[in-house]
Amino acid sequence: MKTAETADRTCSRGFVSLVGAGTGAADLLTIRAARRLADADLVLHDGLVTLEVLRLAPAAEHVRVSRRPAEQVITQDEVTALMIEAAHAGRRVVRLKAGDSFVLGRGGEEALALAEAGVPFDIVPGLTSAVVAPAAAGIPVTHRGVASGFVVVSGHAEDAYAPILEHLPPHVATIVVLMGFAERTRVAAFLVARGWPLDTPAAIVTNASQPSERIWTGTLGVIGEALHEAVPEDAHTLIIGDVVAVGAEIAAAMSAPFESRSSDGNERRSQDVRTRASVVCA
Amino acid sequence: MKTAETADRTCSRGFVSLVGAGTGAADLLTIRAARRLADADLVLHDGLVTLEVLRLAPAAEHVRVSRRPAEQVITQDEVTALMIEAAHAGRRVVRLKAGDSFVLGRGGEEALALAEAGVPFDIVPGLTSAVVAPAAAGIPVTHRGVASGFVVVSGHAEDAYAPILEHLPPHVATIVVLMGFAERTRVAAFLVARGWPLDTPAAIVTNASQPSERIWTGTLGVIGEALHEAVPEDAHTLIIGDVVAVGAEIAAAMSAPFESRSSDGNERRSQDVRTRASVVCA
Repeated sequence: MKTAETADRTCSRGFVSLVGAGTGAADLLTIRAARRLADADLVLHDGLVTLEVLRLAPAAEHVRVSRRPAEQVITQDEVTALMIEAAHAGRRVVRLKAGDSFVLGRGGEEALALAEAGVPFDIVPGLTSAVVAPAAAGIPVTHRGVASGFVVVSGHAEDAYAPILEHLPPHVATIVVLMGFAERTRVAAFLVARGWPLDTPAAIVTNASQPSERIWTGTLGVIGEALHEAVPEDAHTLIIGDVVAVGAEIAAAMSAPFESRSSDGNERRSQDVRTRASVVCA
Repeated sequence: MKTAETADRTCSRGFVSLVGAGTGAADLLTIRAARRLADADLVLHDGLVTLEVLRLAPAAEHVRVSRRPAEQVITQDEVTALMIEAAHAGRRVVRLKAGDSFVLGRGGEEALALAEAGVPFDIVPGLTSAVVAPAAAGIPVTHRGVASGFVVVSGHAEDAYAPILEHLPPHVATIVVLMGFAERTRVAAFLVARGWPLDTPAAIVTNASQPSERIWTGTLGVIGEALHEAVPEDAHTLIIGDVVAVGAEIAAAMSAPFESRSSDGNERRSQDVRTRASVVCA
């Protein structure tokens, strides 16, 4: 990996930005995030970051630092070491995470390491799929008389979600589960065992905001039957609670890019985001 | 109010975008939100939306539709009627909410009304202060070994947060309270009565991402003493949990715009966002 190509830069001091890339659509990045990418020398990105977003950093070296076992094997310590080394060499580094760095993105660990190494850094928030995925399905995570708050948990293992969901009664809050697709049947059984009705509305939004976006809606009782053909590269968000039923009404009327819709075990692909302009001015 | 100035527009059909304005800094809007504003004929905005953001819609008529009693008195039904009337007149309307429309923003109600009226609409997600405010204070809402999830509630009244927080044990999740500044002492007492230690770290972030941003950090036990000079126009976010202590370490090292810092009952104003470029290339 090259880390010293900065001779032609006017900035002599390296800098790291921990940037949230949002959920995949390039126009759902913040303006500040797009500027950091345009100015970057080096972009260290997750496997979930889309090509469409990476194109916003045409001048930078791009390094994929996924921790998925099947891909390039790199540890968190190695990612951190790469960032620090590049910053010390005077480079402007963007550490680019899908969603938001501080929402189940290990941004805290990376920020602490940068602080310890004396590397200047900032944090540029991004749209988390905990917000975008429900919106894509028309689901208001809060809705008057239905849910006055919501809970965001990681679904990758029971000890990540169980202590938080253990005593949460049904019908008071919306649950959003990130990284929980593989565990969806267990999450549902966990809630049902604690009094959540089997017919509690549930949704799974796959690749929210991307051309490959898909929405499944059903109930806790049948969530295990959802989307068997899903591939590991997909990003899934589970949404559980009565607001999912409100979302069905809203989504049925929404325009592209979020107009695709399904119910009870069916799903279909959404239209490409780029078709939207013609909807507005049809 | 004028609603029929669309003769010179190429679009004959009205459209409403429910757009999240983020937390105040114009460069924390999404690119899609900025485009909707640039294309708008009419912007209906909350009192919390900043002038900096409204400037992104220079060609539009701007109408402030705050529901604060001290300001222009307009009901939710009247806001909805305005949107529908303008869309039927062929105008491109942006309904602009601070944060995200679907996160405690009544976007669901407005979307349902648009659906019922047959008005085409879309939803453009925005950065909620539930994510930006913690980041401004360096606080990762999730952090390995500290919190694997977070809970977002409205603090405007006890019956909004009590059912959700009632059985949440300490040390498992971060609590983010929006619209809870006036209730902060009651929220703290509610948690302490349910076993949360008095010394649980807590933070209040005021006007996150704006030049007037301020950060207070302390504990549940002293949260009532925070920021007595706060004015009603300010937007406050409470963050409660052990991650606030992690944030103190991170924020101490962060660069502007989020570099300002305080601890235990003190606060100071953050630097203007526009100073940041000089930090990167100093």
